[in-house]
Amino acid sequence: MTEFFNVLPPDEARKLLFRHLTTVLPSETIPTATAVGRVTAAPLLSPLSLPAFRRSSMDGYAVRAADTYGAAESLPALLTVVGEAPMGKATAVTLQPGQAVLVHTGGMVPDTADAVVQIEHTQSLQSPVSNLQSPPFEIEVLRPVAVGQNVLQIGEDVAEDEEILPAGHRLRPQDLGGLLAVGITELAVARQPRVGILATGDEVVHPTLITRPGQVRDINSYTVSGQVIEAGGIPVRGGIIPDNYGMLETAVAKLLAECDMLVLSAGSSVSARDMTARVIAGLGEPGVLLHGIATRPGKPTIVGVVGRKPVLGLPGNPVSAMIQFDMLGVPTIYRLQGLAQPPRQRFVRARLAQNLPSASGREDYVPARLADSADGLLATPVFGKSNLIYTLVNADGLIKVPLNKAGLEAGEWVEVRLF
Amino acid sequence: MTEFFNVLPPDEARKLLFRHLTTVLPSETIPTATAVGRVTAAPLLSPLSLPAFRRSSMDGYAVRAADTYGAAESLPALLTVVGEAPMGKATAVTLQPGQAVLVHTGGMVPDTADAVVQIEHTQSLQSPVSNLQSPPFEIEVLRPVAVGQNVLQIGEDVAEDEEILPAGHRLRPQDLGGLLAVGITELAVARQPRVGILATGDEVVHPTLITRPGQVRDINSYTVSGQVIEAGGIPVRGGIIPDNYGMLETAVAKLLAECDMLVLSAGSSVSARDMTARVIAGLGEPGVLLHGIATRPGKPTIVGVVGRKPVLGLPGNPVSAMIQFDMLGVPTIYRLQGLAQPPRQRFVRARLAQNLPSASGREDYVPARLADSADGLLATPVFGKSNLIYTLVNADGLIKVPLNKAGLEAGEWVEVRLF
Repeated sequence: MTEFFNVLPPDEARKLLFRHLTTVLPSETIPTATAVGRVTAAPLLSPLSLPAFRRSSMDGYAVRAADTYGAAESLPALLTVVGEAPMGKATAVTLQPGQAVLVHTGGMVPDTADAVVQIEHTQSLQSPVSNLQSPPFEIEVLRPVAVGQNVLQIGEDVAEDEEILPAGHRLRPQDLGGLLAVGITELAVARQPRVGILATGDEVVHPTLITRPGQVRDINSYTVSGQVIEAGGIPVRGGIIPDNYGMLETAVAKLLAECDMLVLSAGSSVSARDMTARVIAGLGEPGVLLHGIATRPGKPTIVGVVGRKPVLGLPGNPVSAMIQFDMLGVPTIYRLQGLAQPPRQRFVRARLAQNLPSASGREDYVPARLADSADGLLATPVFGKSNLIYTLVNADGLIKVPLNKAGLEAGEWVEVRLF
Repeated sequence: MTEFFNVLPPDEARKLLFRHLTTVLPSETIPTATAVGRVTAAPLLSPLSLPAFRRSSMDGYAVRAADTYGAAESLPALLTVVGEAPMGKATAVTLQPGQAVLVHTGGMVPDTADAVVQIEHTQSLQSPVSNLQSPPFEIEVLRPVAVGQNVLQIGEDVAEDEEILPAGHRLRPQDLGGLLAVGITELAVARQPRVGILATGDEVVHPTLITRPGQVRDINSYTVSGQVIEAGGIPVRGGIIPDNYGMLETAVAKLLAECDMLVLSAGSSVSARDMTARVIAGLGEPGVLLHGIATRPGKPTIVGVVGRKPVLGLPGNPVSAMIQFDMLGVPTIYRLQGLAQPPRQRFVRARLAQNLPSASGREDYVPARLADSADGLLATPVFGKSNLIYTLVNADGLIKVPLNKAGLEAGEWVEVRLF
């Protein structure tokens, strides 16, 4: 057990924790169609070129570009349409000079054509465009096209053997599209971290129970579960444990064995927190790494590692617990999946609506509402004691007051960490 | 069937569509613990005050504040600790003047006390603070406390009958916490919209198949499914339908009957799109509302309503399909659930890295990569034809070029719609 009350700023706390987590969870192979939100376990190369054939990007006529050179409204080029490129099949027609083939958007351009004239730049001599008769028929081309114009070339989207996604990439809907387009219908992704969650404290009861004076309902098990799901993990709730060393030790050891990471929502008293630290320290090396994070709220957060599995002891109060889990737990879930970069949409810049006092040497996170204004986003702090869950319910995000700032002034640009 | 080719900007298209969608889906009651991402169907009032009893926000001693007035390091107030407030139970002790009760963070403050002195501002005469003996024992208070100090009052977090969440609110982890804290263990939320998805086109084949020349794999069914899930809906994939009016009509009617909304990824040819419009028009009133959206990419998008159910005909090309679904489909899924305000984290401001040409009178959406720079976020356009899915795979979001702008210049601040 660490003998001193060791406190670090959040960034350094994360670094210290991550130094003890050298491994990413093993991968598993799953269908691409179900992989949104999962993290790639290895780089992915395209097995083929896309498009696999020359496709028209317009409705029009596949032509030899040279046949259209000099064409103008006043002097159209006259071409004979000798066939139609069928959708979904190879186009068998061979073009001779002066010939064209009707082609639809996405259709295959014949080998003997090198450009597509869009239909709006042609006119049919026989009938309105909307009522095309069977080839052969004649068209007038009103504008010239260059070689390659309106033709998607083989491999223009992605080339064979090109890396299409790196390892550690969280899959979005378009990534599924890119993979399926080249026939990658299953892929290796990091296994989703199983995150054990235990609430402790003699005063904590299940939310369905009627509370007696002195009791409070367990909410941290559920707020943290929601955060785990949003980060891509699987919450495993282990229930509520009273402030009893033996019971806590048994429950923690059992849940840690079943999970990849463990979160304890400590009882709110000092002795309950001490018990959490003792239990973590007793489970295995390296045990407790840190007894505190230099932030408000959430200072008394315990950061530990037992046999390569991260163990976090969150403060009992719900606001501190959520904020600490957001700063330490969520990045750890990303890290266990090998995610190279956390999602960018977690931050916005906003102007501060009023002065915000703070102490230097500590990162403050202040719940805030956001509103649109002529100057851009406006952030109004939601003041309240850090024990009050409704300060978070009534907020859109957290204003970050940096470590070395003694407060912020109204009108300053601030960074808001969105929920 | 609408006789003219009707085109509107995206905002007006949404308004037109929403005017025909007067109803929100019926609600269902679900456990609060599983409600992250769901949308409240009615305002929620707190059935009780929180805290339900006066709680200490510190480890320390519950006192009568008047007993500490004038206390200082040089002249401590002497108090007798007559008991300990147990965690999770009512505190039965009655304080006489000059008496105090040991209390832990979160513990119940006795009725006869009106403040808490934190333990760091006291010293015990008998033993070190870390080894407290049983009461009664004496302490010295080194600083005065005001009435109410370090005490969370009844209802300070939320008052009985106060509205805690409005209708149309998408539930976040802390909202679950706020609801469970007051004993709301189940609640009414809008049913999740079932969104039917059909791919059409003779050239489109299932992603597991080997393509022949002229064929492409269906990817729109899967990208749109991912978008539906992210917006809170349930995708129902109906497969791939060839360009055949009768088959398409049958498939559309069947899927529409099972779902709350329908999305067609049209074949990419003009005739295939016309067929989609004819099928939608034939299904019922009001049918097709719009034949196009004034954006690039994605102009040939069909917006329809059949018997109060929205029906979207997306362009076949995967980039247009995703962008149009993001602009029209996602807000419609929100709307069907009664969501009052779409999630804010969809936009960031960034500086444009290079000039971006555009045509006035049309909203352009240009895929872009984002990078951090000294000036803030930098957005670099990913150029490529709108048919190329890898322009989206390689991008972090879309730069919006407003309707009335003829292009944007390098260095300008732009709005980027994040994926």
